[in-house]
Order: sequence, then structure tokens, then C-alpha cells
Amino acid sequence: MSGTGVWLAGARGSVATTAVIGALAVRAGLAGTTGMVSERPGFPGDGLPQPAELVFGGHDLSDVPLTKRAEQLAHAGVVPADLPARLHGELAAVEDDIVTGGADGRTRDLAGTLERLSADIAAFRDRHALDRVVVVNVSSTEPPTPSRPEHATLDDLRRAVGTGTLVLPASACYAYAAFESGCGHVDFTPSVGARLPALAELARERAVPYAGNDGKTGETLLKAVLAPMFAGRNLRVNSWSGTNLLGGGDGANLADPQVAASKLNSKRRLVSETLGYPVEGPLHIDYVDDLGEQKTVWDHVTFQGFLGARMSLQFTWQGYDSALAAPLVLDLARLVAAAHASGRAGPLPELAYFFKDPIGTGTHDLAAQYDLLCSFAARGCR
Amino acid sequence: MSGTGVWLAGARGSVATTAVIGALAVRAGLAGTTGMVSERPGFPGDGLPQPAELVFGGHDLSDVPLTKRAEQLAHAGVVPADLPARLHGELAAVEDDIVTGGADGRTRDLAGTLERLSADIAAFRDRHALDRVVVVNVSSTEPPTPSRPEHATLDDLRRAVGTGTLVLPASACYAYAAFESGCGHVDFTPSVGARLPALAELARERAVPYAGNDGKTGETLLKAVLAPMFAGRNLRVNSWSGTNLLGGGDGANLADPQVAASKLNSKRRLVSETLGYPVEGPLHIDYVDDLGEQKTVWDHVTFQGFLGARMSLQFTWQGYDSALAAPLVLDLARLVAAAHASGRAGPLPELAYFFKDPIGTGTHDLAAQYDLLCSFAARGCR
Amino acid sequence: MSGTGVWLAGARGSVATTAVIGALAVRAGLAGTTGMVSERPGFPGDGLPQPAELVFGGHDLSDVPLTKRAEQLAHAGVVPADLPARLHGELAAVEDDIVTGGADGRTRDLAGTLERLSADIAAFRDRHALDRVVVVNVSSTEPPTPSRPEHATLDDLRRAVGTGTLVLPASACYAYAAFESGCGHVDFTPSVGARLPALAELARERAVPYAGNDGKTGETLLKAVLAPMFAGRNLRVNSWSGTNLLGGGDGANLADPQVAASKLNSKRRLVSETLGYPVEGPLHIDYVDDLGEQKTVWDHVTFQGFLGARMSLQFTWQGYDSALAAPLVLDLARLVAAAHASGRAGPLPELAYFFKDPIGTGTHDLAAQYDLLCSFAARGCR
Amino acid sequence: MSGTGVWLAGARGSVATTAVIGALAVRAGLAGTTGMVSERPGFPGDGLPQPAELVFGGHDLSDVPLTKRAEQLAHAGVVPADLPARLHGELAAVEDDIVTGGADGRTRDLAGTLERLSADIAAFRDRHALDRVVVVNVSSTEPPTPSRPEHATLDDLRRAVGTGTLVLPASACYAYAAFESGCGHVDFTPSVGARLPALAELARERAVPYAGNDGKTGETLLKAVLAPMFAGRNLRVNSWSGTNLLGGGDGANLADPQVAASKLNSKRRLVSETLGYPVEGPLHIDYVDDLGEQKTVWDHVTFQGFLGARMSLQFTWQGYDSALAAPLVLDLARLVAAAHASGRAGPLPELAYFFKDPIGTGTHDLAAQYDLLCSFAARGCR
Repeated sequence: MSGTGVWLAGARGSVATTAVIGALAVRAGLAGTTGMVSERPGFPGDGLPQPAELVFGGHDLSDVPLTKRAEQLAHAGVVPADLPARLHGELAAVEDDIVTGGADGRTRDLAGTLERLSADIAAFRDRHALDRVVVVNVSSTEPPTPSRPEHATLDDLRRAVGTGTLVLPASACYAYAAFESGCGHVDFTPSVGARLPALAELARERAVPYAGNDGKTGETLLKAVLAPMFAGRNLRVNSWSGTNLLGGGDGANLADPQVAASKLNSKRRLVSETLGYPVEGPLHIDYVDDLGEQKTVWDHVTFQGFLGARMSLQFTWQGYDSALAAPLVLDLARLVAAAHASGRAGPLPELAYFFKDPIGTGTHDLAAQYDLLCSFAARGCR
Repeated sequence: MSGTGVWLAGARGSVATTAVIGALAVRAGLAGTTGMVSERPGFPGDGLPQPAELVFGGHDLSDVPLTKRAEQLAHAGVVPADLPARLHGELAAVEDDIVTGGADGRTRDLAGTLERLSADIAAFRDRHALDRVVVVNVSSTEPPTPSRPEHATLDDLRRAVGTGTLVLPASACYAYAAFESGCGHVDFTPSVGARLPALAELARERAVPYAGNDGKTGETLLKAVLAPMFAGRNLRVNSWSGTNLLGGGDGANLADPQVAASKLNSKRRLVSETLGYPVEGPLHIDYVDDLGEQKTVWDHVTFQGFLGARMSLQFTWQGYDSALAAPLVLDLARLVAAAHASGRAGPLPELAYFFKDPIGTGTHDLAAQYDLLCSFAARGCR
Repeated sequence: MSGTGVWLAGARGSVATTAVIGALAVRAGLAGTTGMVSERPGFPGDGLPQPAELVFGGHDLSDVPLTKRAEQLAHAGVVPADLPARLHGELAAVEDDIVTGGADGRTRDLAGTLERLSADIAAFRDRHALDRVVVVNVSSTEPPTPSRPEHATLDDLRRAVGTGTLVLPASACYAYAAFESGCGHVDFTPSVGARLPALAELARERAVPYAGNDGKTGETLLKAVLAPMFAGRNLRVNSWSGTNLLGGGDGANLADPQVAASKLNSKRRLVSETLGYPVEGPLHIDYVDDLGEQKTVWDHVTFQGFLGARMSLQFTWQGYDSALAAPLVLDLARLVAAAHASGRAGPLPELAYFFKDPIGTGTHDLAAQYDLLCSFAARGCR
Repeated sequence: MSGTGVWLAGARGSVATTAVIGALAVRAGLAGTTGMVSERPGFPGDGLPQPAELVFGGHDLSDVPLTKRAEQLAHAGVVPADLPARLHGELAAVEDDIVTGGADGRTRDLAGTLERLSADIAAFRDRHALDRVVVVNVSSTEPPTPSRPEHATLDDLRRAVGTGTLVLPASACYAYAAFESGCGHVDFTPSVGARLPALAELARERAVPYAGNDGKTGETLLKAVLAPMFAGRNLRVNSWSGTNLLGGGDGANLADPQVAASKLNSKRRLVSETLGYPVEGPLHIDYVDDLGEQKTVWDHVTFQGFLGARMSLQFTWQGYDSALAAPLVLDLARLVAAAHASGRAGPLPELAYFFKDPIGTGTHDLAAQYDLLCSFAARGCR
């Protein structure tokens, strides 16, 4: 398969920039594919677009050029110090496909915004003569979106858009534009994205697949293996407390309690839903500027065993969210493109493995999700 | 099913005592079955002997009575403070079925020892008119057993036993006696147990099932979910270091470096075998008297992600090994008894979920092992 | 010295109950004095009232009897399981000196309340023919107290009390009543207590000593040695984040964000004041019911060394606040009684060693505070 | 004061290279003095040689040039990425003063070795017309040195050297050569260094000062504040376990159990000596190649409080040993030079603050050691 485009909403953010640098580095033979799930044994190399063949573009409200962002990430230790210089030309070329602007969730001219977004995506596809494009939302997390009657059906939504009476959150605008342009869509954030009934209808109408929400890269990844472990051993989890310390742009954005609420919602459910009973414990996301692109998570779990014996587990995870997320963005672009090519439309529950709050599936057990993913890939993402 | 006996090698040790107290407490309605895997939804309640119906006996070299051991465990926080007094009569009754003595791995009269062990087990079965007995080794860990030519075939082994030229380690004596008496066998320790070719032959000859080795209750349990998580995400694990601090009799025994070697061997393999490449890092088991029956484990893992980003995970696990192991001993007795009843003979790889070093199977992935176990139970342990 | 009374505001709380049990156990030869600073070598045994000689009484809004509270603490692991029964008679005797009621910070009859509190204290002193009484506030933490003009001078305060126009927080009522009755006062909480100019005046007028605020028992104790360590080595602390998980009554009370604010204020200052520059980082106090009387604290510190090298320290502290606080309550009662006896009046900055937010001194360096304390004790608490 | 030389035994090791880079960077205005104790307020700027004025030379068995070592340290994250290039000329100049070779503890021609070392040091002093030189041992840790009769007096030692019957460990050779050349000496390692009676005599004879042993940079630094904290609060420490994971050359060297024994000896004493009673617990130093120049330490402490309440503290320290040690090497060179200039000879117990195993003093309490150091500096290092 060739000619696959990846259109990044938030194309100059840390995750997007790392994904682009990574794909370019793989193409140039300067890096391997560590961290990419779709490069594991068992995934059909031929059935997926190659990382080196992906073509990148996107929207971003910021105008800091990609070459500059690459240097910042190198300085912060996310990417090797020498890569930004070595890939300068390639990064500058991608820069030409990034449109400054996009959706910001506050426009009064929603119809115009949606048309503009769709036109930008279509122009990118035409310019590079791409078979298909996957739109991936890696922009900043939004506050939770209150549900509104206009979200209920596609007709209602179109009418509201036409009369200019509605403000859609930015994440939903990108999903709308993706579907209208006939593109698959991935929401890597906890924002609402494609999760409105009207947008589900639109995806079916246009016969495009989509996946989400909220990439699972650290604390929740661990919860997704540890909670099933406790469940399997019939141990009773009494409390699960978590503190996430993070710097960088993501941290600054999440320092806003309204925005953090979105993230916390999608983080919180996993443990109780896996275990089948409520589990107390605070869950914090805190901004610590000094951490830069690094994240440090501490979780503390109390549990009871046979005859009530009281025990505990605590872990500290120190990672770079962008380095963990970027290869998954490439995985998802490849898998959604392949699903699109093979005729799948609507939600892809088989990609639950990647998400904190997976669309269209109930299980949070990482091992079960991995089995689901492997079968999906093995049968050609059909 | 009724009339199932559990013969414990090491019947007065912490694990055995906790298992007995627990089964008696469940029978008396004084405790639930938290920590017992076989009580999870999906396990066939009818198809397994009930915890409350199990009948206990065993061998132990120590003569400290069970009622006394129960008080010690209550004092150490492993079992509720009031249980030993409430169950005093029931514990004293089990005490009557414990034979002081057993195998100690040093006897010159091996033939006599084996006969005596078998006779003790058979007498217990007859005394209680049991349908069947499962022999479970929860005695102290032995040093590694050097392989010898007499272990190769059952004929060789019987000849050597007859001529008095061989010393079998105690764990193998219990397995031998179990098989000779027509009993299933579980080795919950890292000792050699049934893992001699001659004993595998004996189990087939007597058509009895067996399982082992080395119950997975803490650090290795966590490794069995975390290592597959790293593998699935295609993250490169560079080092995995572990420190196990433990007190109690188990800790004192493992303070002997020769004995610790057995434990470390079975602990060490999991990570490299799961990931498919060698992973450096020290692994310590240390005796800290003050910890009593408690164990504290610290593991430190370094790994690399996309573009070489360096990250780490550390965890601290604080638990009571006896409280974690005891319900698994009851699970294993139930499952092996059911397998025996349904005609299974030889190794039971379906029970890998319980062991650090499972007999007859290659996978160390806890989720895969759990699926295997559930299918086994669902089809009647056949 | 003999005949020293300890009047506990919050006499049925966990800290007070543990202090009383402890003193009674020491008297009965059932426990040692581990955890009591004033029993360290160098402290003048003769110059201080003996732990065994202290006489206890107090106020509490709750009416759960001390004997019941003792059982709860034993169940929670704070005190040995057998102590409540062994000390039942002695605890019941102390119970007779506890008045249900006290100050609750909401009364409209402030003059009456203050008279009643003073009368209760005086009656206790007379009943036991005590030389002197130290009033110790170990009641629940209050929300921060807004400063008011009536707090400025003793005249203003008395006038406002007389005209019934003012509500004093409960902690200040206890300080007022202590001073009016001619008693020394200790505030072990972050509440305002004696820290109003008018009350400082009253203490001078009645020539009584006082000390506070907010006993330093866990996270802040560690900060008080670690922050000076970083300072001494000229290492730059970039962030200091803390999460306090606690259950029990204290945790439930601190789950109220307004109340937590008091505690956080006194916790937060130490690091920046010791280092001389602002240090970022969140500080959380969270209620986790399952922890019972136990507290678990995780702190994460990032710092820079020579040539900007980035490093970190994290610690996890698991303790029983009541077991840590109770012996310090006895220490403070002894030391304040001795200071009173030797003629000291007004604030005792020499007792800063015990407090998060010490009155009358600037240093937060634990070692410097310890030296100050030892000199004070060595010169007879003068 | 001017004209101070620093002669580094192990001049191309990580600590020495970082110290040299740092001093050159300070001189060039490219770095500050974070991590240098002697730059704290209260230290007499004028009374000490300035960091920028120090002149460096030394011995090393390795011939990897300093410029190359600087690049390696930058790559490992110990020093900023751009410093090696910016300081290339200055590093090359220092390189000219490093003699490949030195003492290796195995020579049969001890007299010749000692003469050669002394001559190298003297030539360095003459070449740069230095007022004085301080010899600092930052070479690899040696195995423990068995005591021998020839070490007892200077006469015995000289006789044995003369007759070629003795092998002195390398660290003692450097001390001998330092004293013979009239230089002050610092041993930053746990090796024997100047700690032979004969060498103490020699230092007195030549009227030169010396300090040691074993720089306190991580785990032991923390112990030196935490152990006094437990002592001051009269808490009973029951166990103190420690695991040190380290890579780099230091880690590789310490992977040799004989060498590690030296380090462990000096690490182990502090807790028990501070508390006054033996404290159990394992102490490990393990080589983990992947950690590079980074060290990760985990300590686990169990302690008991009032009425026997059981509590614990654990900490994880992640640091760069070279970045922690290098500024202390500069501090020590300045302070010993100043002491030499002001006429001090023999051991300098006032420098205990810097060492795990301080010569000439009993206290391990960091705060007490800091007070001692400040007084010493304030009175002109006299």
C-alpha cells in the first residue's frame, strides 16, 4: 500500500513533532521502530503502509516552525540531539504542509471553519496524490463538552451548523472535517472528537473508519495490566491513588482544572470498570514546570488478600509522553488507513489497545485488547 | 465431589498453616474466599471440591503444634487476631493428622523413607475414607539438585533406591510417595519435586496428574504482567533489577545462598524468556528479621522507547507471602483433585498461571496463562 | 516535680487517647518511652515531671468513651492489642476527668463558653491538687481564621467578648481559657490557637508560657532535615511535590478543602523559607478511608547540581500519626510545665523542634532546632 | 591567595574530568558554582583560592585524552552538551599536565615509583610556579588493604621501601608522594590512602594537612541526616536496607566484590554508629551497565515508635555521582590549600562533612559536621 497521508490536528505539538521526526528518521535509516506496536512480529508488514512512506501535514494554532520545535524536543531529551539538524530539510518540507490555524472551539462561523478544514485536508491529499488520508487529533485536551440536542442526529447537526447557532468544540470540528473529506479519523486525546451521535452517523454515511479516545501511554497503561492481575487473583483492591506530575505544554494545559477534568474522567474509569466495584482514591494531574517534557507518576494501591491480609503496591513511572505517544500515532495512522482500504467503516473497537477510553468496547484488560488487535491485523484490518 | 484430602509436606509452615486456618474459617463462616482464584466467576463451583470440604494432613520435621503456629501468624498480622482461638478445636483436630518427621534429603535408608511416606499418606486416606488425596509440597526450599544418571528412568531410579546407593532430595521423595500412593502432586516450591524423568514416568504409570513449580505470589507475579506489557508496546527493556527483603522462616532459609540459588533461578528466567533477549540486572533475596512474615520487594526497570528515549519504572510491593500463597494452595488442591477425578494424568501445563517456573509450558504471560486456566476449568479440568 | 496535669482539648481523639494510653502503660511498666524526645540522653530526668506522674483530663465534643477509643486504636494497629484491656480501669478513671463538650467555634455566648472552659480546667486542678496544668490542643484542625480588629489587643478582645459580638475559633478559646486559668498552653494543630496579639498579651499578663503550632510528625519532619541538606550542599531544588494519603478522623476532617488549607499553609512554607527562594510543586492532603489510622506520604524532589546536572529524590513514608504525635504531646506537656515552674512566660521558641510552624523563631532546620531544645532543657527550661 | 595546584590521582576519571571542566567553565563564565559548598554564604571568599584560579594536573593509568572524556560525559548527560567543544583548548592545556601512568599497587620497584610520583608533582608545581599543591585521590576504589607491621612507623615503612620488600597500595603511594613533596592530600575514595600510622607520621614531619575518606555524595549523605532525625525523635530503627545500582567505570570497578567490600565498609558504619546499636539490613552495590553515569539508590528503613507502632521509610535517589562529587573535590582542594597556607598540619577532622568515613572525628551527624566546617572556614581554616 502506498500514498497514505497523516493529517495532524496539533501538528506542531510535542507528540506530532516527535511522530514526524521519527518517521523521517526511520526513512533516513537514522532510527529503528522501537515503540511501534505495528512493527512487532505477527503484524503484516505488507498489509500496512510503511512508516517511511507516510506523508505528513496538519493544522496548528501556533506558528512556531517544526524545525524549531524539533530543536526544543532534542534539548528536552525526547529526541536525539543530532536529529533536528540531520533532518532539517525533510522537516522544512513537512512544514510546507502545515496550515497555521484550524479550529479553536470558539468561532461564530462554524460552517466556514468546517469548510476550510475540509478544504485544507483535500488540498493536501490532492497535492501529494494520496490514496487516502487519516486525520489524527493530537492537539491540546479540551474541557468536557456538555451534550446538546443538536448533537443527536446528523440532520440536526447540519441544520445547526447551517444556521450558525452552534459552537462545536475543536476536536469535533476535526472529526467532522475528516469524515466530510472521506478520511479516517483517530482521536488521541480525551476530547469529545467523533463521539457525538451525529458524527457517528456521518462516518457511516461516508463509509470511513475511526478510533479513539485518549492514548494510553503511562499510568493507565500500567493500570490496564495491574487491575486485571488483581482481579484474576481475586484480590480485593481497596484504594488506588495516583499523582501525575508533568511539565511541558501538556502539563501547562492540564493545569487548568476544567481541562484536567476531561483527562481525569477517562483515567478514572478503568480500575472500577475492570474490577466491577467502586475503588476510592484521589487522582491528581499537576503541572511542574521543571519536569519539561518528562512525566513522573506515582500510584499507590492498597488491597486485601486471604483472611483480610492488608497489602500494598506502589509504582513510580518516569517517561516522556511524546516518546511514548508518537509511535502509537504512527501505528494508528497505519492501521486506520489499512482498515479504510479494506472497506471498514465506523468505530474500530479492535484498536482499544491504544486508548484509555476506547470507543465501541467494554474491556480495559490490556492483554485481551492486544489479542483483539493482533487478530484484527492478521485478518488484514478488515 | 467430596472426600478430597490435602496432604501438606511442610504442614506446620506458614503457608500450610494459613491454608488450613483459611479453609477452616471458610467452613465456619468466619472468612470469605478473597484470594482464591477458583472462586472467581467462571470457575465451575460444582466441578471442584469445596474449600470447606477439604480434609488436611501432612508431614513436618518441626513439632511446633498447629495451634501454636496459628497464634504466631495472628501475632504477625497474617491472620485475624481472633481466629486461632475460635478455630482451636478444628486446628487441634488437623494436628492429629500431621506426622512429625518426613523426608529430609539426608537419609541413608531411602527405601524405608519412601515406604514410610507412602504409608502415612495411605493411612490418612483410609482413616478419612477419602476419594483421593493431593500431596502439596510447601516445605522449605532446597538447594538446586545436581542431575544424576539414576534420575533418568524409573527402572534406574527403583534400582538405586533398592540398593540404597542414592539420596533423593526431600521434595522428590514427596513426589515419589505421592505417585506411589496414587495421589496427585503439586510442588509450590522451586525444589526439584517431580521434575525428574523417572518421576514423570512414575506419574504416567500410576495415572496421576501433577503441577508446579514455585508459586508466583509477588515480584514474579508483577513481572508476568509487566514484561508482556513492555513487549506488546515494543519497548526495549535494558535492565531489570530486584531486591526482595523478607523475614520469617522463609527468609531465614533463603538467607543461605545455596538455597537462594534455587529461588533466584526460577525468578530470573521470566523477563528474558518473555522478551526474547537477555536483560541485565541484579536480583537479590535478603533476610531482614524485623520484617517478620512480611515481604517488601523493590524492582527497578530501565527501558527505551521511540528514538531511544530513556525511561524507567520502579515498584514496591509489600505483602504477606503466606496470605498470598495459601489460597493458591487451596486452588491447586481443588484443581488437581478435579483433574485426577476426570482422568487426567501427567503434567498439567494449564496450571502455569500459578507458577514461576511452570512445568510443560513455555509462556510466562500471565494473561495467556489465565485464559488457559479458565478454559481448563470450564471443560471440567479434563 | 510532681502534680502536673495535662488538659487535652480533643481528649477523645486518636492523638490524645494514644498519649493517655502511653503514659498509663509506662506507669504500669507495660511499655517503654520510645518516641519520647524528653527521654533521650541529655534531658534532665529530674527537672521534668515524670511521664508516669502526669494526670490527664480534657474536653471533647464527642462522647465515645476513652475505653472504646482505645479498642479502636488497638484494632487499627496503633497500640498493642492487649493494652486496652490491661489498662481498662486506669482509662475509665481518666474518663471521669473528661468533660463532654468544649468550644466549637460557633457559639453566640462566647463569654459563657470561656468561663465554662476555665472553670472546667480549674476544677480539674483543684480536684487533683495539681501544682500546675498544661492545656494541649489536639482537637480537629480548623479552617484558617480571618484576622479581625478585635484580635489586636487584650482590651479590644475582652470588650468584644463582653458585648457578645465576636466568635472566636475553638482553638483560641482553649488558649484563652488556659491563660485565664493560669495554665501553660501547647497548640499541636495548625489552628490559630494562641497566635492572636490579644492572647500573647494575656499570656504575658498571667505569666504563663506557650508553644506551637502544628506538630511535625511526618512529611514536614523529613523536609526539615532534607531541605537543609540540599542547602548545605549548595544544590538547587527546582520542585518539591507532595501527596499525603490518610484515613481516620484526621483524614476525614482534612478532606474538607477549607480545613486542609490550614494544614497546607503550615506545611508549605518550610522548604522555601529554608532554601531562600520559591520552590514550585503541588502539595496534596487526600482522604483514603481504607488507610485507617495509617498515613502514606510520597514526596518527589527535583534538583540541579554542578553544571546543571538534573537529579531527583523521592521518598515514601508510612506511619501512624497518632503514634508519632502522642509521645511529643507528653514531651511538650513536660517541657512547658517545667518552663512554667521555672518562671518562663510568653512564647517558647526553644520548642520549635516539635512544630511545623514554630512560634517565635525563624529557623526550620531540624538539627539547629534540636540544639536549641537541648540547651533549653539543659538549663532547666528557663 | 593564588597559585594553587590540584594534582588529581585518576585525572582522567569521571569525577576528575567533571571537576576540571567545571572549574574551567566557571572561569570562562559558562557555569555557576551550584554544588560547591565553599561558595555558600558564610564561607570567606577571600580566604580561599578561587575556583577559577586553580591549576590542574595529575596521574592516570588510562591514556584516553581529557577532551575525549569530556565528550563522553556530555553524551552521558553529566555535563552540558556544548561545554566540551567550548572548552576544547583549555582542556587540551590541562591534558599537557597529566602524566599517563602513576601507581598501580602491583609494582616491585616501590622506591622508584614513589620517587617518580613525587618528581611529577614537584615538576608540576615548578612549571606553574605554584605556591602549593593539593593532591586529591579520585582514582578507582581499591580492595581493602590488610594491615602489615611495616605500616606501623615511618622508620619501618622507609626501611621496607628501601629494601624493596613491600607493596603499598596505589592510594597510599599517592599520599606518600604528596607528603614527601610537601603537599596537602585528600582521599575522596574508600581506599586506605593516608590512613597508615607511618603516613600520619610523615604528614606531621612535613607539616602538611590531609583529609578523607570517601566522599559522601548520595545514599550516605541521606543517611547522615536521616539517622540523626530518627535518633533525635527517639525512634527505634529496626532495619536499614540499601541497594545501589550504578553503571559507568565506577560501577564496573565496584562489580568486583573485593573492591565493593571497601566501599561497603565505609557505607555501613554510619547508621549503627549514629544510633548506638546494631541495625540489620543488606547493603548492595550492583553494576547495571545501562545506567551509564547515573546512579539509582533505593533504601528501605523499618522503625518503631511509641508503644511499638511499626512504620517505614523508603527513598529513591537518582543522581550523577560525578556531578555530585566534582564540586566537592574543588571545595576540598580550596579548603586544604587554605589550611596548609595557614599552618595547619595533620588530619583535618573539620572536613568530616564531606566524607563517609571521616578521619579524626566520631560524629556522622551531617548538621553537626556542617557547623564544624563553617567555624573552621570562618576562622581562616586554621
